Amino acid sequence: MPMPADVMDLETPCLLLDEQRLRANVARMKTHLASLGVAFRPHLKTAKSLDVARIAMTSPSGPATVSTLREAEYFAAGGVRDMIYAVGIAPAKLPRVSAIRAAGADLAVILDSIEQADAVAAHATRTGDAIPALIEIDADGHRSGVAPDDAATLVAIGQRLATGGAALRGVLLHAGDSYALNNPAAIADAAEAERIAAVTAANALRSAGLPCPIVSVGSTPTARYARDLTGVTEVRAGVFMFGDLYQAGVSSVDFGDIALSVLATVIGHQKAKGWIIVDAGWMALSRDRGTAKQAVDQAYGQVCDLAGRLYPDLVVADANQEHGIVALRKGAAAALPDLPIGARIRILTNHACATGAQYDRYHVLDAAGAVSAVWPRVNGW
Amino acid sequence: MPMPADVMDLETPCLLLDEQRLRANVARMKTHLASLGVAFRPHLKTAKSLDVARIAMTSPSGPATVSTLREAEYFAAGGVRDMIYAVGIAPAKLPRVSAIRAAGADLAVILDSIEQADAVAAHATRTGDAIPALIEIDADGHRSGVAPDDAATLVAIGQRLATGGAALRGVLLHAGDSYALNNPAAIADAAEAERIAAVTAANALRSAGLPCPIVSVGSTPTARYARDLTGVTEVRAGVFMFGDLYQAGVSSVDFGDIALSVLATVIGHQKAKGWIIVDAGWMALSRDRGTAKQAVDQAYGQVCDLAGRLYPDLVVADANQEHGIVALRKGAAAALPDLPIGARIRILTNHACATGAQYDRYHVLDAAGAVSAVWPRVNGW
Repeated sequence: MPMPADVMDLETPCLLLDEQRLRANVARMKTHLASLGVAFRPHLKTAKSLDVARIAMTSPSGPATVSTLREAEYFAAGGVRDMIYAVGIAPAKLPRVSAIRAAGADLAVILDSIEQADAVAAHATRTGDAIPALIEIDADGHRSGVAPDDAATLVAIGQRLATGGAALRGVLLHAGDSYALNNPAAIADAAEAERIAAVTAANALRSAGLPCPIVSVGSTPTARYARDLTGVTEVRAGVFMFGDLYQAGVSSVDFGDIALSVLATVIGHQKAKGWIIVDAGWMALSRDRGTAKQAVDQAYGQVCDLAGRLYPDLVVADANQEHGIVALRKGAAAALPDLPIGARIRILTNHACATGAQYDRYHVLDAAGAVSAVWPRVNGW
Repeated sequence: MPMPADVMDLETPCLLLDEQRLRANVARMKTHLASLGVAFRPHLKTAKSLDVARIAMTSPSGPATVSTLREAEYFAAGGVRDMIYAVGIAPAKLPRVSAIRAAGADLAVILDSIEQADAVAAHATRTGDAIPALIEIDADGHRSGVAPDDAATLVAIGQRLATGGAALRGVLLHAGDSYALNNPAAIADAAEAERIAAVTAANALRSAGLPCPIVSVGSTPTARYARDLTGVTEVRAGVFMFGDLYQAGVSSVDFGDIALSVLATVIGHQKAKGWIIVDAGWMALSRDRGTAKQAVDQAYGQVCDLAGRLYPDLVVADANQEHGIVALRKGAAAALPDLPIGARIRILTNHACATGAQYDRYHVLDAAGAVSAVWPRVNGW
C-alpha cells in the first residue's frame, strides 16, 4: 500500500495507530499477567491485524483469541497456531472450523449447551476431527454461558463431547458486566467473582473425572485490576491494546495511553453556531456512543491536534455519514480554536473495536509522529 | 464470489438484499420525480454498489451522487460519467478529483466558502482542469451551507470560481432536518422550504449574471413527499432504495418495502431470561440506534423469519460485538418463538447506510427467496 511519511499527506479520514503507545500497553499487560502467573491469550477482535497480533502475542504462533472465522483463517495463514473462536459455535460453522484445523492451526470452539456438544461430537465422529471445545460459563449474567454451579449441565456437556470423539478443552468466561463499572476496587471485585466462577466450574468438571486443562477468563477491565488469579490458566483481553474513551471512562485504560485516533480535515464552518465541519462523520468514527451513559459523555469523540494534544472541551458534537460537527462542550470556558479549511485534527473515539471496523488499514505513527508503516486489517466474517 | 442458492447454506452473519423490493422502491421514486418534472440523481452512499447503481440511475452513465472519492473512483471505473461528490471539498482532495475527471468522468465538487472557491480556482488555474463546483446552501440549519439569502457570499463564491477558471455548476441543498419529522404533511412542508431556499439562492446567482444550471435538492423524506419542485432541476435521495426501520419511523418508506436485512443464526439461549442468542451483534447490525429517539424504539432491529415475516414484538434487545440478544419487547403479549440452535432469522435494522457499511457484499434474493447473485460493495475512502 502507498505510504506517505507525513500525516499531512495522508488521505482523510484515516486511522492512526501510535505504535509506541500500543507497545507500552501490551508490555504493561504482559508484565501484570506474568506477575499473576497466568498465560496471556490476547483477543484480536479489536486489532484484526497480524502486525498488531505479533506485538500482542507472547509468541508468533499464539495463543490468541478471535471473534470471527475470517479472523481465524487470516491469522492461521499468518502462522498463528493456537486460537479460540470465542463466540458460541453454530453447527453449520464446523466444516469451516475443521478446514482451518486441517491447515495446521489448533482452533478451539466454545459452547454452552448439550445441543451444541452433540453437534460438535457428531461432527467429530463423522470427520475424525477431534475439535476441542471449551464450555462457556456465565460469570455475571451478562450474556451466554452455563451457570458456574450447574454441575449437571457442565458434566453432561463434557461427557457428550468426550463420548462423541471431540475434546473437552476447559472453561471460558467473560466478565462483560465489568464494562459498566468505573473504579479499580469494583473492577478488582468483579475479577475475583469471575475467578471464583471459573474455578467453581472447573472443579465441577474435574470432580466428575473430566479434563479441564484451560481455565480462561478475561475482559480489559478485569485483566488490568485482577489481584489474584489462582486456579485460572489464562487471560484474554483485547481493547486495552488501543484503548478508547469508553475504557478511559471505566478507568481500565489511562487517557494518555489511547493509541488509536482518526485523522480528519476541516471542510467548513458555521461561525454563528461555533461549528467546525470535518470530513470524519459517523462512517469514520463509528456510530458507537458508548460514553453516552458514562459520567462524562464524549459525544462522537474528543478532538486533538496533530501531536495528539487535546483541545480543551472540543468534541465532535454530532455526526452525519461523512460530516463531523466539531464544537465546544456546552458551558466550556475554552475558546474555539482557529482551524481553517484544510487544517487537520485527530479524534479520539468512543470504542476502538467499532471505529477500527470502519477501516481496512492502520497508518502507524512512530515516536516522532511520522507515518512508519501501513498495516492491513481483516473485517467481515 | 462463491454463491450458494439457498439462504440456509450462506455463512452468517451476512447481508440480504431483496431485489424485487429494491426495484419497486426505485421505480416508485422515478415515477414520482418524473411526474414533478425533475431529474433524478440517486445518492449511492447507501448502496455503494455498481449493480445497485445500474438499477437506481436513469442511465448507465448517471447522473449520480457520491459521498466519498473512493465511491467516485469505483463508479467512474464502472462507467458512471456524471457525478457530484456531495461533501464539502478539502483542497488536498483536488488532485484526486482531477485524476477521476481526467479518466473521463464529469465529477463536480461542492463548497460553501470563499476559501474553498479560491482553492478550487487556484487548482483550476494551475492544472487547467476547470473543476465544476456547486455551492452548498443551508436549507434548514442542519449542517453546512451558505444561507440562501446571503447573496453577497453566494455571488463572491461564484465570481471567484469563474475568475479562476473553475466552473460554477449551480447550487445544492440537503434538507437533513426532515429526518426528525414523522408525517407526510410536515415532510411536504419541509420539501417546500427546501425548494424555496434553492430557488432563492439560484436567483441570487442569476441576478448577478452568474450561471446556475443545476438546482439540486434531496433527502429521502422530502423526495418522497414533495408536491411541487418548480425551479428545481434534480433530486438526490439514496436510503429509500433499501429502506430501514428509521425511515419507516419517519414514514418516508413503508415498512413492507424494506429491502435490506441481516441473516443470522441462533447460537444459544438463556431460557430463564427469555433470551435467544444469535451470531449477529453490533458488528453485523451496526451500532446505529437511530430509532431510540422515535415513537417506537426498535432496539438493534426487528426479527423476521426466513420469508421476511415479522415475529410479533421480537427484537434484538441488546448487542455485543458478535452476539445479538433476541428477546420480546417488554410487556409483549406474544410468546417467544421456538428457535433452536442453528435456526436462522432475518433482522431489519435501524439504518441501511450504517448496516451496509459493515459488509463487503450483498447476497441478493430473487422473488422466490433464493440467492440469485452476490454484489460487491465499496467501503472506505
